[in-house]
Amino acid sequence: MKKTNIPTTLANLTEHWSQRIVAQANGQLFKVAKGIGETNWHKHDDQDELFFIQKGQLKIDFRDGHVILNPGDIFVVSKGVEHRPVAKHEVEFLIVGSDITSTAEGGKPNL
Amino acid sequence: MKKTNIPTTLANLTEHWSQRIVAQANGQLFKVAKGIGETNWHKHDDQDELFFIQKGQLKIDFRDGHVILNPGDIFVVSKGVEHRPVAKHEVEFLIVGSDITSTAEGGKPNL
Repeated sequence: MKKTNIPTTLANLTEHWSQRIVAQANGQLFKVAKGIGETNWHKHDDQDELFFIQKGQLKIDFRDGHVILNPGDIFVVSKGVEHRPVAKHEVEFLIVGSDITSTAEGGKPNL
Repeated sequence: MKKTNIPTTLANLTEHWSQRIVAQANGQLFKVAKGIGETNWHKHDDQDELFFIQKGQLKIDFRDGHVILNPGDIFVVSKGVEHRPVAKHEVEFLIVGSDITSTAEGGKPNL
């Protein structure tokens, strides 16, 4: 058993929209990520996706609206819901789910 | 879907070693709690327990050692492992698991 410091891990993370696992518990992966700009529209049919903002601001677009998340905010995107994270400036967040979601199918910017 | 601000929720929490649910995702409960002093020794046979320190310092005693957690630190107490959280001064943390664990059997101070 070892501890992980989240701000330090985020400070060492250089890639955007790429998740690094920091802990596992009860089958869930606790991951950190940085983002800037926007990813493509996507959804995860297999898992809810929890965001916990650590630094900066994240907007999440939905087909019928959006939510603005600031440091200290927790928000859950339910499985199956189409969404698109958008960050005008760099944002740092904790993200929790059953698996890594920053794949080509979801959570990455369009090339 | 709604967002929850963790520092605000913690600021409004007055009881110690009592968990308030702030979000649910993939069968896991995301809870906040404050602690001061120490709880009884206990273990959870049914779930890992993840701590994410938001403010203050938390020491977790184990039968064969301890860990000191500061703000930004994440630590997982694996299921079945006996532990005792200790806080010299008030500590605020996020705690994640399958269920509420601040019951008489675990996570509460001895009366």
